[in-house]
Amino acid sequence: MAIGGAGAALGPTTASAAPPTAALVHHVFFWLKNPGAAADRAQLIAGLETLRAIPVIRTLLIGTPAPTENRDVVDASYDVSELMYFDNAADQKTYQDHEIHQAFVKNCSHLWQRVVVYDMQTV
Amino acid sequence: MAIGGAGAALGPTTASAAPPTAALVHHVFFWLKNPGAAADRAQLIAGLETLRAIPVIRTLLIGTPAPTENRDVVDASYDVSELMYFDNAADQKTYQDHEIHQAFVKNCSHLWQRVVVYDMQTV
Repeated sequence: MAIGGAGAALGPTTASAAPPTAALVHHVFFWLKNPGAAADRAQLIAGLETLRAIPVIRTLLIGTPAPTENRDVVDASYDVSELMYFDNAADQKTYQDHEIHQAFVKNCSHLWQRVVVYDMQTV
Repeated sequence: MAIGGAGAALGPTTASAAPPTAALVHHVFFWLKNPGAAADRAQLIAGLETLRAIPVIRTLLIGTPAPTENRDVVDASYDVSELMYFDNAADQKTYQDHEIHQAFVKNCSHLWQRVVVYDMQTV
Protein backbone atom coordinates (compact mmCIF):
# COMPACT_ATOMS: atom_id res chain seq x y z
CA MET A 1 0.00 0.00 0.00
CA ALA A 2 1.81 3.05 -1.21
CA ILE A 3 -0.77 5.73 -0.52
CA GLY A 4 1.79 7.69 1.41
CA GLY A 5 4.67 6.82 -0.90
CA ALA A 6 4.08 9.87 -3.01
CA GLY A 7 2.69 12.11 -0.38
CA ALA A 8 3.05 15.08 -2.64
CA ALA A 9 0.85 13.39 -5.17
CA LEU A 10 -1.79 12.08 -2.86
CA GLY A 11 -2.19 14.17 0.20
CA PRO A 12 -2.31 17.72 1.37
CA THR A 13 -1.28 16.62 4.85
CA THR A 14 2.40 16.08 4.16
CA ALA A 15 4.51 18.87 5.58
CA SER A 16 6.11 19.88 2.33
CA ALA A 17 3.17 19.15 0.34
CA ALA A 18 2.14 21.16 -2.54
CA PRO A 19 -0.10 19.11 -4.76
CA PRO A 20 1.71 17.86 -7.84
CA THR A 21 1.18 20.40 -10.57
CA ALA A 22 2.34 18.17 -13.38
CA ALA A 23 1.58 14.68 -12.16
CA LEU A 24 0.48 12.15 -14.72
CA VAL A 25 -2.14 9.67 -13.59
CA HIS A 26 -2.34 6.38 -15.50
CA HIS A 27 -5.48 4.42 -14.66
CA VAL A 28 -6.05 1.04 -16.30
CA PHE A 29 -9.13 -1.18 -16.07
CA PHE A 30 -9.07 -4.89 -16.93
CA TRP A 31 -12.00 -7.12 -17.79
CA LEU A 32 -11.12 -10.82 -17.41
CA LYS A 33 -11.89 -13.40 -20.06
CA ASN A 34 -13.45 -15.32 -17.20
CA PRO A 35 -15.26 -12.55 -15.34
CA GLY A 36 -15.12 -12.95 -11.59
CA ALA A 37 -12.77 -15.94 -11.74
CA ALA A 38 -10.90 -15.68 -8.45
CA ALA A 39 -7.79 -17.54 -9.60
CA ASP A 40 -7.46 -15.43 -12.74
CA ARG A 41 -7.99 -12.24 -10.76
CA ALA A 42 -5.32 -13.29 -8.27
CA GLN A 43 -2.90 -14.10 -11.09
CA LEU A 44 -3.49 -10.71 -12.69
CA ILE A 45 -3.02 -8.93 -9.37
CA ALA A 46 0.21 -10.87 -8.78
CA GLY A 47 1.37 -9.79 -12.22
CA LEU A 48 0.58 -6.17 -11.47
CA GLU A 49 2.56 -6.41 -8.24
CA THR A 50 5.70 -7.14 -10.27
CA LEU A 51 5.40 -3.68 -11.81
CA ARG A 52 6.40 -2.08 -8.50
CA ALA A 53 10.03 -2.74 -9.42
CA ILE A 54 9.89 -0.23 -12.27
CA PRO A 55 11.59 2.92 -10.94
CA VAL A 56 9.64 5.57 -12.85
CA ILE A 57 6.38 4.54 -11.18
CA ARG A 58 5.86 7.03 -8.33
CA THR A 59 2.85 5.26 -6.82
CA LEU A 60 0.98 2.09 -7.73
CA LEU A 61 -2.42 1.19 -6.36
CA ILE A 62 -4.14 -2.05 -7.36
CA GLY A 63 -7.83 -2.51 -6.80
CA THR A 64 -11.18 -4.06 -7.55
CA PRO A 65 -14.66 -2.51 -7.79
CA ALA A 66 -15.63 -0.76 -4.56
CA PRO A 67 -18.92 -1.45 -2.78
CA THR A 68 -20.40 1.94 -3.59
CA GLU A 69 -23.97 2.70 -4.53
CA ASN A 70 -25.23 1.14 -7.75
CA ARG A 71 -25.84 4.06 -10.10
CA ASP A 72 -26.22 4.24 -13.88
CA VAL A 73 -23.04 6.29 -14.27
CA VAL A 74 -20.88 3.89 -12.25
CA ASP A 75 -19.06 1.23 -14.25
CA ALA A 76 -18.37 -1.58 -11.80
CA SER A 77 -18.10 -4.23 -14.51
CA TYR A 78 -14.30 -4.41 -14.57
CA ASP A 79 -12.40 -7.04 -12.60
CA VAL A 80 -9.10 -5.41 -11.68
CA SER A 81 -7.66 -1.93 -11.90
CA GLU A 82 -4.22 -0.37 -11.59
CA LEU A 83 -3.63 3.28 -10.76
CA MET A 84 -0.17 4.70 -11.29
CA TYR A 85 1.48 8.09 -10.97
CA PHE A 86 4.32 9.28 -13.16
CA ASP A 87 6.19 12.57 -13.14
CA ASN A 88 5.53 13.13 -16.84
CA ALA A 89 4.61 11.48 -20.15
CA ALA A 90 8.22 10.56 -20.91
CA ASP A 91 8.37 8.47 -17.76
CA GLN A 92 5.07 6.85 -18.70
CA LYS A 93 6.60 5.87 -22.04
CA THR A 94 9.68 4.50 -20.25
CA TYR A 95 7.34 2.36 -18.20
CA GLN A 96 5.48 1.11 -21.29
CA ASP A 97 8.74 -0.03 -22.82
CA HIS A 98 10.30 -1.40 -19.62
CA GLU A 99 11.14 -5.11 -19.73
CA ILE A 100 9.23 -5.80 -16.53
CA HIS A 101 6.11 -4.27 -18.04
CA GLN A 102 6.65 -6.17 -21.27
CA ALA A 103 7.02 -9.41 -19.29
CA PHE A 104 3.79 -8.63 -17.43
CA VAL A 105 1.94 -8.21 -20.73
CA LYS A 106 3.46 -11.41 -22.09
CA ASN A 107 2.61 -13.42 -18.98
CA CYS A 108 -0.82 -12.02 -18.19
CA SER A 109 -2.50 -10.76 -21.36
CA HIS A 110 -4.16 -14.14 -21.90
CA LEU A 111 -6.21 -13.39 -18.79
CA TRP A 112 -8.05 -10.34 -20.05
CA GLN A 113 -10.55 -9.73 -22.79
CA ARG A 114 -10.58 -5.94 -22.59
CA VAL A 115 -8.40 -3.12 -21.30
CA VAL A 116 -9.26 0.56 -21.05
CA VAL A 117 -6.63 3.14 -20.17
CA TYR A 118 -7.13 6.74 -19.06
CA ASP A 119 -4.12 9.04 -18.84
CA MET A 120 -4.82 12.23 -16.92
CA GLN A 121 -2.65 15.29 -16.47
CA THR A 122 -3.46 17.37 -13.42
CA VAL A 123 -4.46 20.99 -13.95
CA MET B 1 -3.76 10.29 4.71
CA ALA B 2 -1.72 11.47 7.65
CA ILE B 3 1.17 9.04 7.94
CA GLY B 4 2.74 9.92 11.24
CA GLY B 5 4.47 13.17 12.06
CA ALA B 6 2.98 16.06 13.97
CA GLY B 7 0.29 16.49 11.39
CA ALA B 8 -1.21 13.15 12.30
CA ALA B 9 -2.46 14.59 15.55
CA LEU B 10 -4.77 16.87 13.64
CA GLY B 11 -6.61 14.26 11.64
CA PRO B 12 -9.46 11.92 12.50
CA THR B 13 -7.47 8.91 11.37
CA THR B 14 -4.87 9.08 14.12
CA ALA B 15 -6.15 6.01 15.91
CA SER B 16 -4.08 3.86 13.61
CA ALA B 17 -0.56 4.64 12.56
CA ALA B 18 -0.78 2.24 9.65
CA PRO B 19 -1.32 3.52 6.12
CA PRO B 20 -4.94 3.24 4.97
CA THR B 21 -5.42 -0.27 3.71
CA ALA B 22 -8.95 0.20 2.47
CA ALA B 23 -8.68 3.40 0.50
CA LEU B 24 -11.47 4.03 -1.93
CA VAL B 25 -10.60 5.70 -5.22
CA HIS B 26 -13.39 7.56 -7.02
CA HIS B 27 -12.44 8.46 -10.60
CA VAL B 28 -14.92 10.38 -12.75
CA PHE B 29 -14.64 11.26 -16.44
CA PHE B 30 -16.70 14.01 -18.06
CA TRP B 31 -17.44 14.50 -21.74
CA LEU B 32 -18.62 18.04 -22.48
CA LYS B 33 -21.68 18.80 -24.59
CA ASN B 34 -19.33 21.09 -26.49
CA PRO B 35 -16.21 18.93 -26.70
CA GLY B 36 -13.03 20.91 -26.35
CA ALA B 37 -14.85 24.18 -25.55
CA ALA B 38 -12.31 26.02 -23.39
CA ALA B 39 -14.86 28.15 -21.53
CA ASP B 40 -17.04 25.17 -20.67
CA ARG B 41 -14.01 23.18 -19.57
CA ALA B 42 -12.88 26.04 -17.34
CA GLN B 43 -16.37 26.34 -15.83
CA LEU B 44 -16.47 22.62 -15.08
CA ILE B 45 -13.01 22.72 -13.51
CA ALA B 46 -14.04 25.70 -11.39
CA GLY B 47 -17.08 23.74 -10.26
CA LEU B 48 -14.93 20.76 -9.35
CA GLU B 49 -12.66 23.03 -7.31
CA THR B 50 -15.61 23.86 -5.02
CA LEU B 51 -15.71 20.20 -3.99
CA ARG B 52 -12.46 20.63 -2.03
CA ALA B 53 -14.52 22.05 0.84
CA ILE B 54 -16.17 18.67 1.46
CA PRO B 55 -14.37 17.20 4.50
CA VAL B 56 -14.62 13.49 3.67
CA ILE B 57 -12.58 13.95 0.49
CA ARG B 58 -9.04 12.93 1.42
CA THR B 59 -7.47 14.03 -1.86
CA LEU B 60 -8.85 15.62 -5.01
CA LEU B 61 -6.99 15.79 -8.29
CA ILE B 62 -8.52 17.45 -11.34
CA GLY B 63 -7.15 16.80 -14.79
CA THR B 64 -7.43 16.62 -18.54
CA PRO B 65 -6.14 14.01 -21.01
CA ALA B 66 -2.38 13.60 -20.78
CA PRO B 67 -0.09 13.80 -23.83
CA THR B 68 0.75 10.12 -23.80
CA GLU B 69 1.16 7.83 -26.78
CA ASN B 70 -1.92 7.33 -28.96
CA ARG B 71 -2.85 3.65 -28.52
CA ASP B 72 -6.06 1.76 -29.20
CA VAL B 73 -6.59 0.99 -25.52
CA VAL B 74 -6.19 4.60 -24.39
CA ASP B 75 -9.42 6.60 -24.12
CA ALA B 76 -8.38 10.24 -24.43
CA SER B 77 -11.81 11.39 -25.62
CA TYR B 78 -12.97 12.81 -22.29
CA ASP B 79 -12.64 16.51 -21.50
CA VAL B 80 -12.17 16.69 -17.72
CA SER B 81 -11.56 14.18 -14.96
CA GLU B 82 -11.70 14.20 -11.17
CA LEU B 83 -9.85 11.72 -8.99
CA MET B 84 -10.80 11.51 -5.33
CA TYR B 85 -9.82 9.37 -2.36
CA PHE B 86 -12.13 8.45 0.48
CA ASP B 87 -11.51 6.36 3.57
CA ASN B 88 -14.42 4.06 2.78
CA ALA B 89 -17.71 3.67 0.88
CA ALA B 90 -19.71 5.37 3.64
CA ASP B 91 -17.65 8.53 3.23
CA GLN B 92 -18.15 8.33 -0.52
CA LYS B 93 -21.91 8.24 0.04
CA THR B 94 -21.64 11.21 2.42
CA TYR B 95 -19.88 13.08 -0.37
CA GLN B 96 -22.57 12.15 -2.91
CA ASP B 97 -25.25 13.57 -0.65
CA HIS B 98 -23.30 16.63 0.52
CA GLU B 99 -24.91 19.97 -0.33
CA ILE B 100 -21.74 21.27 -1.99
CA HIS B 101 -21.71 18.26 -4.29
CA GLN B 102 -25.41 18.64 -4.99
CA ALA B 103 -24.84 22.33 -5.82
CA PHE B 104 -22.02 21.37 -8.17
CA VAL B 105 -24.31 18.96 -10.03
CA LYS B 106 -27.06 21.55 -10.21
CA ASN B 107 -24.74 24.28 -11.46
CA CYS B 108 -22.59 22.28 -13.86
CA SER B 109 -24.52 19.28 -15.18
CA HIS B 110 -25.72 21.29 -18.18
CA LEU B 111 -22.09 21.30 -19.34
CA TRP B 112 -21.64 17.58 -19.83
CA GLN B 113 -23.22 15.01 -22.11
CA ARG B 114 -21.72 11.93 -20.49
CA VAL B 115 -20.19 10.89 -17.18
CA VAL B 116 -18.44 7.63 -16.36
CA VAL B 117 -17.50 6.76 -12.78
CA TYR B 118 -15.13 4.06 -11.56
CA ASP B 119 -14.96 3.28 -7.85
CA MET B 120 -11.96 1.19 -6.89
CA GLN B 121 -11.11 -0.41 -3.59
CA THR B 122 -7.44 -1.13 -3.06
CA VAL B 123 -6.38 -4.72 -2.49
